[in-house]
Amino acid sequence: MKKTVIILSGGLDSTTLAYYLKDKGHKLYALTFNYGQKQKEEISAALTITKQLKISHKIADISSVKDLLKSALTKSDIKVPDGHYAANNMKSTVVPNRNMIMLSIAAGYASSIEAENIAFAAHGGDHFIYADCRPLFVDTLNQALIASFYDDNVKPLIIAPFSNFNKTDIVKVGHTLKVPFELTWSCYKGGKKHCGRCGTDNERKEAFRLAGVPDPTEYEDETGVFRG
Amino acid sequence: MKKTVIILSGGLDSTTLAYYLKDKGHKLYALTFNYGQKQKEEISAALTITKQLKISHKIADISSVKDLLKSALTKSDIKVPDGHYAANNMKSTVVPNRNMIMLSIAAGYASSIEAENIAFAAHGGDHFIYADCRPLFVDTLNQALIASFYDDNVKPLIIAPFSNFNKTDIVKVGHTLKVPFELTWSCYKGGKKHCGRCGTDNERKEAFRLAGVPDPTEYEDETGVFRG
Repeated sequence: MKKTVIILSGGLDSTTLAYYLKDKGHKLYALTFNYGQKQKEEISAALTITKQLKISHKIADISSVKDLLKSALTKSDIKVPDGHYAANNMKSTVVPNRNMIMLSIAAGYASSIEAENIAFAAHGGDHFIYADCRPLFVDTLNQALIASFYDDNVKPLIIAPFSNFNKTDIVKVGHTLKVPFELTWSCYKGGKKHCGRCGTDNERKEAFRLAGVPDPTEYEDETGVFRG
Repeated sequence: MKKTVIILSGGLDSTTLAYYLKDKGHKLYALTFNYGQKQKEEISAALTITKQLKISHKIADISSVKDLLKSALTKSDIKVPDGHYAANNMKSTVVPNRNMIMLSIAAGYASSIEAENIAFAAHGGDHFIYADCRPLFVDTLNQALIASFYDDNVKPLIIAPFSNFNKTDIVKVGHTLKVPFELTWSCYKGGKKHCGRCGTDNERKEAFRLAGVPDPTEYEDETGVFRG
């Protein structure tokens, strides 16, 4: 049985990935990062999900690092933009080098517990905005991981099974695997309900609509995809 | 003037690197990691040194991550071995993937302040024990960094100017640059004075002796290089 550390945000993508890998027989070790994100709901969602999955779960608190990094997702004086994902308005949601930071810590953890894989839920729809979701990034970082460990250690390697999926594909896969989508959290703004207006909520609404799967999410703004 | 984030531990190597780069005209931004190391003296040393150098200094606290990572340097129930560096007895001092973790956070910081370089003091003497001090590691991680950022960001790249030096060479360079070696901290054990018996202290003693430079360090054990 493959041991796999999975970076689990509590969002729709990484939750579906956890169900997908469990279905494929991986023994999962979930790792959730508190990087000072405004939406604490994400972390609570992750905790609920790993209880449902009955898998190991650790929280890595790197929130003290947030003051070093410039992004609307961590700084309270930068406003999260409304509207649909697009390079111009979503630039401020890029936490610089976030994936490399999370993956390098996950790799240290994987090495400690002798897990072969680190799984993360990068998908095709992210590539346009986030350079560090591309297959090129995963491939080059794996080369660095191979160099980072000597042969007598287990060398954990990154896998990104959804890298050629878009979010609609992920919703379809999750629906088949009976993922409890209602427990996942996407909204960048934080609150009791998903706002329904930020980039990630619009993407979520659209994915369910295009997948033809009922969307169980409660939104403040229940209207259709908001184009800003 | 080149802007450079330097990973400064407060040890002999990174302190000498700071003086070396300042001498070459870099505008330095020191970054010190608290990764839960036992030797807090290192961090105090780093603070004293950046005051002397009159450069910016930030501390990145990733100590909460230490429970995920298995090493004698961070776990209180694993004993730091005495003796000279050698693969067998020093394996337990390897914090898994430590350099990638520190460099990825430093790269996020560098991107935020638009610095071109991330400098770290890996040197030739480390390669035998620490795979993640080798030029191969630096080169492959730089490829991942190039992939991690889109073109409209400053893409910070790692430099390791001492990668072909051994510790004796570093002492010689530092002596020329009038580095206040007495302010630096090497000992893995922690205490008021350097213990003089752990692997890094032996390496330090030997480097001064081979460089023909007076060693200003106060050791508990002042005897010659201890071969365990």
